[in-house]
Amino acid sequence: MQKRRAGAYRRGESGAEAEGRNAELGQTIAISIDAMGGDHGASVIVPACVIALKTLPPNVQLMLHGDEAQVRAEMARCKAPAERIVVRPAERVIGMDEKPAQALRRGKGTSMWGAVEAIRDGEAAAAVSAGNTGALMAISKLILRMSMDLDRPALVASIPHASGLVTFLDVGANVDCDAERLVEFAIMGEAYHRAANGVARPTVGLLNVGSEEMKGHEEVREAHRVLREGRLDLDYRGFVEGDDITKGTVDVVVTDGFTGNIALKAMEGAARFVTAELRAALTSGPISTAGALLAGRSLRRFKERMSPPPAAPLLGLNGIVLKCHGGAGAADFAKAIQVAVNLAQSGFAAEIERNMTRLPAALAEVGPAVADGAA
Amino acid sequence: MQKRRAGAYRRGESGAEAEGRNAELGQTIAISIDAMGGDHGASVIVPACVIALKTLPPNVQLMLHGDEAQVRAEMARCKAPAERIVVRPAERVIGMDEKPAQALRRGKGTSMWGAVEAIRDGEAAAAVSAGNTGALMAISKLILRMSMDLDRPALVASIPHASGLVTFLDVGANVDCDAERLVEFAIMGEAYHRAANGVARPTVGLLNVGSEEMKGHEEVREAHRVLREGRLDLDYRGFVEGDDITKGTVDVVVTDGFTGNIALKAMEGAARFVTAELRAALTSGPISTAGALLAGRSLRRFKERMSPPPAAPLLGLNGIVLKCHGGAGAADFAKAIQVAVNLAQSGFAAEIERNMTRLPAALAEVGPAVADGAA
Repeated sequence: MQKRRAGAYRRGESGAEAEGRNAELGQTIAISIDAMGGDHGASVIVPACVIALKTLPPNVQLMLHGDEAQVRAEMARCKAPAERIVVRPAERVIGMDEKPAQALRRGKGTSMWGAVEAIRDGEAAAAVSAGNTGALMAISKLILRMSMDLDRPALVASIPHASGLVTFLDVGANVDCDAERLVEFAIMGEAYHRAANGVARPTVGLLNVGSEEMKGHEEVREAHRVLREGRLDLDYRGFVEGDDITKGTVDVVVTDGFTGNIALKAMEGAARFVTAELRAALTSGPISTAGALLAGRSLRRFKERMSPPPAAPLLGLNGIVLKCHGGAGAADFAKAIQVAVNLAQSGFAAEIERNMTRLPAALAEVGPAVADGAA
Repeated sequence: MQKRRAGAYRRGESGAEAEGRNAELGQTIAISIDAMGGDHGASVIVPACVIALKTLPPNVQLMLHGDEAQVRAEMARCKAPAERIVVRPAERVIGMDEKPAQALRRGKGTSMWGAVEAIRDGEAAAAVSAGNTGALMAISKLILRMSMDLDRPALVASIPHASGLVTFLDVGANVDCDAERLVEFAIMGEAYHRAANGVARPTVGLLNVGSEEMKGHEEVREAHRVLREGRLDLDYRGFVEGDDITKGTVDVVVTDGFTGNIALKAMEGAARFVTAELRAALTSGPISTAGALLAGRSLRRFKERMSPPPAAPLLGLNGIVLKCHGGAGAADFAKAIQVAVNLAQSGFAAEIERNMTRLPAALAEVGPAVADGAA
């Protein structure tokens, strides 16, 4: 905890302190950007910065890490406001298929490394990269260090439901999770949901199996009791099931990285399959084809509605790092920058810190799940 | 193993022996039916039996457990072939919302209890019930006993993909699974898939998370090595991910009951959500409404295509028990009876037994996963 930082940092300062200072001074917030990451690199990311700066408040500056000639050429091409952009030269780029271990060995001096290092050095309040996820996780962990006892940063998915988005974590980073980690996911996910989606008091649920007589693992039952009885500042609503994710029963759904990764991919697969089958049904036979043509615009709207948000945070680090999806276009990357600013300006880190200081007492109070008859 | 039985039983006989005898003699196969289970009871199940008997071979008989007056009245109403139906009076019915523990205490003398008991007593080769799932699991376990070291029978889901069905297990019964249990699921699921879907050599995959550097739990890694190296008679294809389920990458997808239940419900939720959103998109605005009307028939075909099969086996028991969904109509319940006959006539139990006898050696050979560097 004591090591967590967010906002525009000074070395050694806590996230809460940085946030307080930012709020008082209304001072410049710098967002650090890996200008070379993703499938398209600078040709998409520089235009994205220009789009983002049009709506961002004037105290926000962008720090672009990448090949200087290339970045400056792109800036000239799209008439970037030079007074709001700092270019930080980086000689190399981490490949989209490089292994994390390889990225760690030869990562120094790359655009991704520089983008993350700027957070540690207190030069930027948040970093955004569309590069290789595994490399970004490994580099962020090495440079910023974890603020929590996790194997690696927790990965968040934002899942659409009828009236908003569900924050779902961990979706793949931490495969083995005890009760304490699950509660940490709840604390981080809740603060992230508020900062990213503007929900004042997000509701939180813990993913479990349905039937009464076989309620979950010991870890899940213990986490449930800590969340229910531990006097954390969370609106915890209890167990939820797999289909509650797309129902939007709660704002934040918490699970371990094994279950979360599988459930996320299973949902994506099911959504793709249903869409493909429905499209096939709509376009088979002459009458159906006419129907599909007429409904074409609706189908496009639907596709837009279903596409996931462009950015996902890596949670549990001493600093804010956002992963933008590799194929993101300029509009999507611009939205990711906006999310980074929202996080940097929010009470995100302080809120997490406040609940985390209560966690040891909550764990001690509730004790191990095995001693509890009423699971 | 030594206690597993299938086919038309004699007391103490193994499944393989019973199957051998059945094949030799071409003798009568009796299917035991809970005539009172499900949302509609005898008014749907008796007509379902009449439908099923029309296509079943003449050596198949049905044994109906339930209120005798009610069952006979239904039989008269739908002109049931009395020579192929035996009625077994049962005074009571287990409620759809009764707890398993309650069902165990007061279950004796109910139609469900009688249906399962007929298997143990060697009078029937398989049982089908549309009643309360938890009660059916508990009663089956008590009467037939488990042939494997499981908490309760494994639950199977059959998931549609573009060119068939995937057998997915365990979807909720056994929350904590070691490597041995996962391998047992693979063995049972493979034999079930062959018997139920007529696939000669089903392929098998083990559900895991994606990224290389964080491949699964210890249990999953050990099960992987046993399946890969253990000389079991299975076409094992290695790890699969969540989205492989609806891709149909393999015929049988194996996981623990916690992950399986959550993934299944998450997929169901995602499919429902996508369908609802797409329907909303198709029916918003005047042009879209016309499109939806024109495409109406296609949408109905789609819905039919997506509905899960009517029956799911409870695996790992000394005997074949099928759960039909509670709301099943006569056509669906008739299909469930057909699946029961397919299982009873297949080499199902013998195939499972053959692989199970190889399992101890396979486990011993491969040793614990922790000792394995290449996970």
